[in-house]
Amino acid sequence: MPHPLFEKHKAVLDAAVEAIHARGFWTPFPETPSPKVYGETAHEDGKRAVEACFGADFVLDQPGQSGWVATERSPYGVELGVRYPVCSTDALIKAAQAAQPGWQKIGAEGRVGVCVEMLTRLNQRSFELAHAVMLTTGQGWMMAFQAGGPHAQDRGLEAVAYAWDEMSRVPAEAIWEKPQGKNPPLKMKKHFEIVGRGVALVVGCGTFPTWNTYPGLFAALATGNPVIVKPHSNAVLPAAITVRILREVLTEQGLDANLVSLAVVEKRTDTQALATHPAVKSIDFTGSNVFGQWLIDNARQAQVYAELAGVNNVVIESTDAYKAMLRNLAFTLSLYSGQMCTTTQAIIVPAGGIETDQGHKSFDEVATDLAAAIDKFLSDVNVAAAVLGAIQSDATLDRIDEAGQHGRVVLASKKIAHPDFPQAEVRTPVLLTCDAADEKSYMEERFGPIAFVVKAADADAALALSERIVSEHGALTVGLYSTRTEVIDAMTEATWRAGVALSINLTGGVFVNQSAAYSDYHGVGMNPAANASYADSAFVANRFRVVQRRYHVE
Amino acid sequence: MPHPLFEKHKAVLDAAVEAIHARGFWTPFPETPSPKVYGETAHEDGKRAVEACFGADFVLDQPGQSGWVATERSPYGVELGVRYPVCSTDALIKAAQAAQPGWQKIGAEGRVGVCVEMLTRLNQRSFELAHAVMLTTGQGWMMAFQAGGPHAQDRGLEAVAYAWDEMSRVPAEAIWEKPQGKNPPLKMKKHFEIVGRGVALVVGCGTFPTWNTYPGLFAALATGNPVIVKPHSNAVLPAAITVRILREVLTEQGLDANLVSLAVVEKRTDTQALATHPAVKSIDFTGSNVFGQWLIDNARQAQVYAELAGVNNVVIESTDAYKAMLRNLAFTLSLYSGQMCTTTQAIIVPAGGIETDQGHKSFDEVATDLAAAIDKFLSDVNVAAAVLGAIQSDATLDRIDEAGQHGRVVLASKKIAHPDFPQAEVRTPVLLTCDAADEKSYMEERFGPIAFVVKAADADAALALSERIVSEHGALTVGLYSTRTEVIDAMTEATWRAGVALSINLTGGVFVNQSAAYSDYHGVGMNPAANASYADSAFVANRFRVVQRRYHVE
Repeated sequence: MPHPLFEKHKAVLDAAVEAIHARGFWTPFPETPSPKVYGETAHEDGKRAVEACFGADFVLDQPGQSGWVATERSPYGVELGVRYPVCSTDALIKAAQAAQPGWQKIGAEGRVGVCVEMLTRLNQRSFELAHAVMLTTGQGWMMAFQAGGPHAQDRGLEAVAYAWDEMSRVPAEAIWEKPQGKNPPLKMKKHFEIVGRGVALVVGCGTFPTWNTYPGLFAALATGNPVIVKPHSNAVLPAAITVRILREVLTEQGLDANLVSLAVVEKRTDTQALATHPAVKSIDFTGSNVFGQWLIDNARQAQVYAELAGVNNVVIESTDAYKAMLRNLAFTLSLYSGQMCTTTQAIIVPAGGIETDQGHKSFDEVATDLAAAIDKFLSDVNVAAAVLGAIQSDATLDRIDEAGQHGRVVLASKKIAHPDFPQAEVRTPVLLTCDAADEKSYMEERFGPIAFVVKAADADAALALSERIVSEHGALTVGLYSTRTEVIDAMTEATWRAGVALSINLTGGVFVNQSAAYSDYHGVGMNPAANASYADSAFVANRFRVVQRRYHVE
Repeated sequence: MPHPLFEKHKAVLDAAVEAIHARGFWTPFPETPSPKVYGETAHEDGKRAVEACFGADFVLDQPGQSGWVATERSPYGVELGVRYPVCSTDALIKAAQAAQPGWQKIGAEGRVGVCVEMLTRLNQRSFELAHAVMLTTGQGWMMAFQAGGPHAQDRGLEAVAYAWDEMSRVPAEAIWEKPQGKNPPLKMKKHFEIVGRGVALVVGCGTFPTWNTYPGLFAALATGNPVIVKPHSNAVLPAAITVRILREVLTEQGLDANLVSLAVVEKRTDTQALATHPAVKSIDFTGSNVFGQWLIDNARQAQVYAELAGVNNVVIESTDAYKAMLRNLAFTLSLYSGQMCTTTQAIIVPAGGIETDQGHKSFDEVATDLAAAIDKFLSDVNVAAAVLGAIQSDATLDRIDEAGQHGRVVLASKKIAHPDFPQAEVRTPVLLTCDAADEKSYMEERFGPIAFVVKAADADAALALSERIVSEHGALTVGLYSTRTEVIDAMTEATWRAGVALSINLTGGVFVNQSAAYSDYHGVGMNPAANASYADSAFVANRFRVVQRRYHVE
């Protein structure tokens, strides 16, 4: 008899698997924060649920708890003061291991059924999650809702769909019957058990605490592994709410809630001890190159799926929609103050300028016009505050302050007073120009609203520079503007060599820094910015093994 | 238009994919060396083709050749003297990289079509390959034919089937159309290119130069990668014949033959330099723990798929077919003188003995009866020579000679004069008993015809010991003999925890050391003996990436 939650969610699962194969648009989680979809009181309920956490203990009932700790500071200046349980790493790991056999026992169908139930519950709580994401990360409200809610749930469901797609092709049992000429055949019965590889650790980042956490979390869960979520110290609340909802679902299903737990770790050495624990068999990490590389070098007992820093870039060779191109780039550079791992940092333009539908534009004109487009787009303070959000970390504020030394400033960053949050640190992008030879300036990630218009000798040099940046420093996204087929073909082949996703001539409502679940492979997993992709079969296939047994039958 | 070789082999590919999902018996490559199947002159032709290589240059027409080298010594005492090209590693890598784009260009269909064509050609040359395998490895003729020919081809086709199964679910292109309420939808066209991760290195072993090479070779090829085959210095010929056939097929297809090349490397430091070359992105290795671990520790730029040593074991708790059990074990221990990575080394028996259909048998009786069964099975010199083959390496001869110091000898190894090859080193198995506490004796791999009957306190202790051996030292196979359901269940759960394939109550024509392509997962990839399995989706999914591009369409 199939698991009841598998039956309940089978239609969604089938559609999700169809979506990852067809890669068109699809989602079961509406991205519009509409009362008609989420309920008349959903917005208020979500806000109140988050506010109820302020200054209080966030009870999770996890083993090995020794105390409480509050670690968050809101970029919007809101006093949070949520206190999270501090638990012994060993206790969490032991409890996770104890929970694994029961999770294995319900089989692939049971696991994916429970996972979709979890995602459905998360979806119902999207407003609560959105408020938590907004207040901890500094994202604007709409992005916090969409990227922190439905889009993150989409990436989780996508991982479940990949896991199911792989696991469903392993039969539970088989009869193997080998002819023996005139003698009776050899006949065996074989059983195939899908076994998770062991405790999974998912290390979240400070900017997208759900979107970058759900893929690894649900990929690991669906394939049979217990998961310990270690959130960024400044974005614990969205992870804590998520873990609580997942633990509730597990308890309702008669499963061990300790299959999923939250590790709020105060010291980096404690995170390191957790990551290198022999029981930890996989680590999903989003964050800095320094700690990511430390994990890859030191957590040798685990498969590490790492999304690190890169230098995303766009080549402008020519365009037949100059203004629309500038608007598109202005939005990309402004969205969440460039605090996305997919935001463009280097815009490479030939020294001789470009041909456009508005006539020839010199290199300097392109830079100046882009600056003007950003300025215009952010001229309305309400638009600016909504799009920019707040600066998440002091390190990013410092980078903005010292950006001027790395090139010629075409557009200076401005501090904007947020209409609703007077203490929020809101900053407009800084745009600089520099020469391709000034590699020190633009060829390392400067996370935040800092972008360079880089002068390349010519179009060929621009393409070659883009490819080299990706190969040597990594990138999650590259873009190209060109009206010439041969340039588009050359750039396409360069991205195959370098291993990066390419957006061509974006002039409308899609932006190079956005990627859509079920359709866009986020990251490729082939250049230094990431060794895995959201999502593909490689993202799930190595998280489980098949253990067989066989015996003779008549 | 589909690739002609895809069309030609589509039925076989479809059947192979069906087989890996159903996991019953299937093969397109007959294992019987019958003239009716392979042709009346096939045996003679194959033998002559191999003999024609003796004392001659084996021309491969590879780049960067600096000379010739002969490295093989036949365990049968036959003078081989085949001289292989010595080529510069850098030249082979550069040529491999140059060949990759053309291989990518024919797409997944083209690649799997060409791969099945290659396997079909290899199958037609099975007698030639069998003679080469027999003379270089010391395998008996029948095993050399079956394991070195059709069964190896099966494992190669299985890898192609897995690769095709994964790649065929990535669409070449898609239309993504996202509704925008009352506004026109956002509409994009997306292209998805499957790109191999880069040069693959396949390092062969001295005992199964085709069976252990074809899975990695064909998994890497099918997923879009050029392959350099680095055979064991004593088993070059089967790999060289394979590479020559593959290069012929590539040339016929107008593809770059340097997509597949042979690296005959004289010094270990040269192999190390090759393995750690930045361009090498995957390594398939079968062999010693020392070099395997060196690769895992040092070839950090590559995915390493390693099959290493282990301590395969069988627990005898009880049986209702005592004599058949002993016959089955006798065959397992004798086949190819135990020089299989799957051969049982430790047979764990309770100190109090076992219940059987022949009454109670004490620990000592089990050991003595097993010794007698081996002795009886090998009493006919023709059977013995055919089953045992010859000892492949001096190191194995040394291990046999000094085995007596590791326990009480129940059956001593005997040297047998081979009826056809007077210089062959043929040895019967040595069987020892020891106590479970004598871990130094039996708890490291003693490759070759050396087995221990290990005395455990009781059945529970026997199961626990088996699990600990697998978890700590690794194993590719474990077996159990028991008439009690609760013991079978307990052992089953132990194998889920330890991650090892289990054979239960084998008393007929299937042996614990045999695994069948498309049905048995060879190795699990979850214990120290191997980090990958032949084959599962994890074996192929990480060998390619999907690189996308997208643009607006009306």
